[in-house]
Amino acid sequence: MDIRALDIDDLDLVCRHREDMFRDAGRSDDVLVPMTEHFRAWVRPRLLDGSYFGYAMLEDGVPVAGIGLMLIDWPPHPAHPTQDKRGYVLNVFVEPAHRKRGLARELMRLAEAEFARRGVGYLILHATAKGRPLYQGQGWAGTTEMAKAAPR
Amino acid sequence: MDIRALDIDDLDLVCRHREDMFRDAGRSDDVLVPMTEHFRAWVRPRLLDGSYFGYAMLEDGVPVAGIGLMLIDWPPHPAHPTQDKRGYVLNVFVEPAHRKRGLARELMRLAEAEFARRGVGYLILHATAKGRPLYQGQGWAGTTEMAKAAPR
Repeated sequence: MDIRALDIDDLDLVCRHREDMFRDAGRSDDVLVPMTEHFRAWVRPRLLDGSYFGYAMLEDGVPVAGIGLMLIDWPPHPAHPTQDKRGYVLNVFVEPAHRKRGLARELMRLAEAEFARRGVGYLILHATAKGRPLYQGQGWAGTTEMAKAAPR
Repeated sequence: MDIRALDIDDLDLVCRHREDMFRDAGRSDDVLVPMTEHFRAWVRPRLLDGSYFGYAMLEDGVPVAGIGLMLIDWPPHPAHPTQDKRGYVLNVFVEPAHRKRGLARELMRLAEAEFARRGVGYLILHATAKGRPLYQGQGWAGTTEMAKAAPR
């Protein structure tokens, strides 16, 4: 299994991983098609300037898994009183035929090492129901975040 | 009760509200003192350029409650497939002598109206244990966010 950093040539791959991840979680095309169109335009400049980064895993040159990473501007907080950044993990995806082999766990280890290298001490993600046990097993815990979709 | 928008003259007030909010939630000075020092430097330019905004409530000219608001850059997501912003509510604080009078509820109504005016459809916050019932009563629900503090 080869591992390499994401770059702009992975634009399609990153978009596909995000869409397939949410499709796996039960989302339907009526929301995923417009999401991917807008996500592609959003992530393209960020892949180019490196503010969206991460890794792809390849078997025989074919990508089989990926992970996205970002630094999010955040007000200094008791969990990171002297820092104004949080590390964010997103778009963790492993192709169905390659699951249960520890690839996501390995991608998460790479992610934590990269954030450590960048000096970021507080990391967040949003878990699907499927992903939650993996993260819990690696020391992640639920937060007090709440959300509300405003009436349109 | 008068209500006005926050501005740069509220720098001390905003810092005090954030610190007192976390102190109420059980955080101690060893983390709050450095947090406020760094938060002050972080929020000052954002109060000046309007990227941190919000409201103060005053009784007889004296501030008794406040709320902070931000727009957070976020990848288009099934909950907001065509938008790349989330509204974030933070630093909701009511002076102890003025609690149980609905001030926080009124501040939240103002916050939601302001985000609606700005066209932002998906809102998030992090609730203290005390604040949670208020938000639940206004239609907010917990998310799947998880966090991990990396070893330093």
